[in-house]
This record gives sequence, C-alpha cells and structure tokens, in this order.
Amino acid sequence: MTVYFEDLSPGDELEFGAYEVTEDEILAFAEQYDPQWFHTDPERAENESIYGSLIASGWHTGAMTMRMLVDEHFSDAASFGALGVDELRWPNPTLPGETLSVRVEVLETRPSESSPDRGVVRTETTTSNQDGETKLSMKPIVLYARRE
Amino acid sequence: MTVYFEDLSPGDELEFGAYEVTEDEILAFAEQYDPQWFHTDPERAENESIYGSLIASGWHTGAMTMRMLVDEHFSDAASFGALGVDELRWPNPTLPGETLSVRVEVLETRPSESSPDRGVVRTETTTSNQDGETKLSMKPIVLYARRE
Repeated sequence: MTVYFEDLSPGDELEFGAYEVTEDEILAFAEQYDPQWFHTDPERAENESIYGSLIASGWHTGAMTMRMLVDEHFSDAASFGALGVDELRWPNPTLPGETLSVRVEVLETRPSESSPDRGVVRTETTTSNQDGETKLSMKPIVLYARRE
Repeated sequence: MTVYFEDLSPGDELEFGAYEVTEDEILAFAEQYDPQWFHTDPERAENESIYGSLIASGWHTGAMTMRMLVDEHFSDAASFGALGVDELRWPNPTLPGETLSVRVEVLETRPSESSPDRGVVRTETTTSNQDGETKLSMKPIVLYARRE
C-alpha cells in the first residue's frame, strides 16, 4: 500500500481533492498569519482591493493544497518531507465559496547521492477551483524512502 | 510612512522579528493543514523520524515568516500581495522552542509594463532561529503600488 520512491515515475499523474474554501477559514488563517486587510476585512476588500473581494492568503492556499496532498497521497507514502518548492505561483486569488482540487504530475525522480536509502521526486503540482481556474502552481522537491 | 515601490532599492536590507515557536502551535497547524506524523506525533517523531524531533510543517514556517513580514513591513506598505515565490527552501527543520527572525534583502525592482501604477520587487528572504541557523529561504515576487 505504501508509496515508495520506486513507485513514482516521470509522467505519472494524480488528481484529487474537494476542499471547500470558507470566508471564516480565510479570516482565521489571515488573522493569525497574514493580517493584511485584503485577507482580513471583507468589506474593505470588496470596495478597495484590486481583486474586488476578500481573498485567501497565498500561504493559506498552500496550506489547503498541502492538506489535500496529505489526505490523498502522503498519508500512504514513505516520505521524509520536502526539501523545497520551485516556481510557486498564485496566478488567481482564492475566493470564499470555491472548491479546490489538486493535480500532480511527476517530472523527475532521482536517487539521492548522499543517502542511498532515499530518493528525490520533483513534481508539477497545480491547485484549481471548480471551474478549472488555476489558483496555485508549484514544483515541490520531495524526499521519499527507497524500498530495501 | 507608507512604503511604496519607489522606496525600495536593490541592496536594501531589513532584519526583524522574534517569533516563538511552540509545540502547541506546531501541532495545531499540522492537525489542520499537514497531518503527517512527524508534524503531529511528538513521541513517534522523537523515536522514528530522521529529524529526531517533532518539526513544524514547512507551510507553517512560511506562515510564521509571513506574520513577521506583515507586522514589520507589509502593514505599512502599499502592497497588492505576491505573484509568487522562487526557490523556497527549508534547509533545516523548525523545532519547538526556537525563536525565529527574518532578514530581507532587495534583489531587484522593476516597474510593471502592463500596469503603470504598480511595480514588482524581488527579494531574498531568510528565516533563521536564535543561533542564526537558516530554517527557510525564498525569493518572493511582490507587487507594490507606485507613488503618483
């Protein structure tokens, strides 16, 4: 059942998730971690923001994406976590009432040179709303355990 | 008082923040957004993890970094938010009991070609603990308003 380094190959694709974005959660995250007015003040955001609406913190969109990735993939994977992320982008703001899903395509798999029990997997990971509009894209670099 | 695009120049440096990382907050964030066992189970993390300790979700380290950035910079800046982040890295795990601070160096400033009221600023942003050990580094790309 567990996904190891050897189980992932370039071109593999996964699609999953149905994360409902609520105004309450946008506000709670932003008040704690990103209290900029366009994330915390719905009325001012509607009237003054270039986005015309309250929008989620980009870090919140990343966190919601991570929750879908854990529920549908990492909870059954032998992963040591991520070394980093390249090309993280927020091409469109995440809005209250949207439903997010995730698409992962494996770009590259490479055994670690320094640690023979591990391998590095690079993916293109995209988070979209119910209409297929991209909210977040990124290229994470994740460490997985190798089979014996 | 407000920081506009024109107030930022390549080579500018800012240093600030003293964010105390608690086990409770690591657990709360991870249970909601990144429920992998090395973020949610202190005992198992201590005994089985390659890190030898409970560690914060990388998205949580990003969120804590954002909070320091907002408190000390964006709360007084005419910013429209970030287009994205390049080269996000977590070279060392964030541990309970650490105190984080942030260092920002402006790399590049560029007026927007499509929107003359805006400019793009690229920085190298680094989050370190009280001993100067780097926990997160990244190159955010942020939109600022231009002065009239």
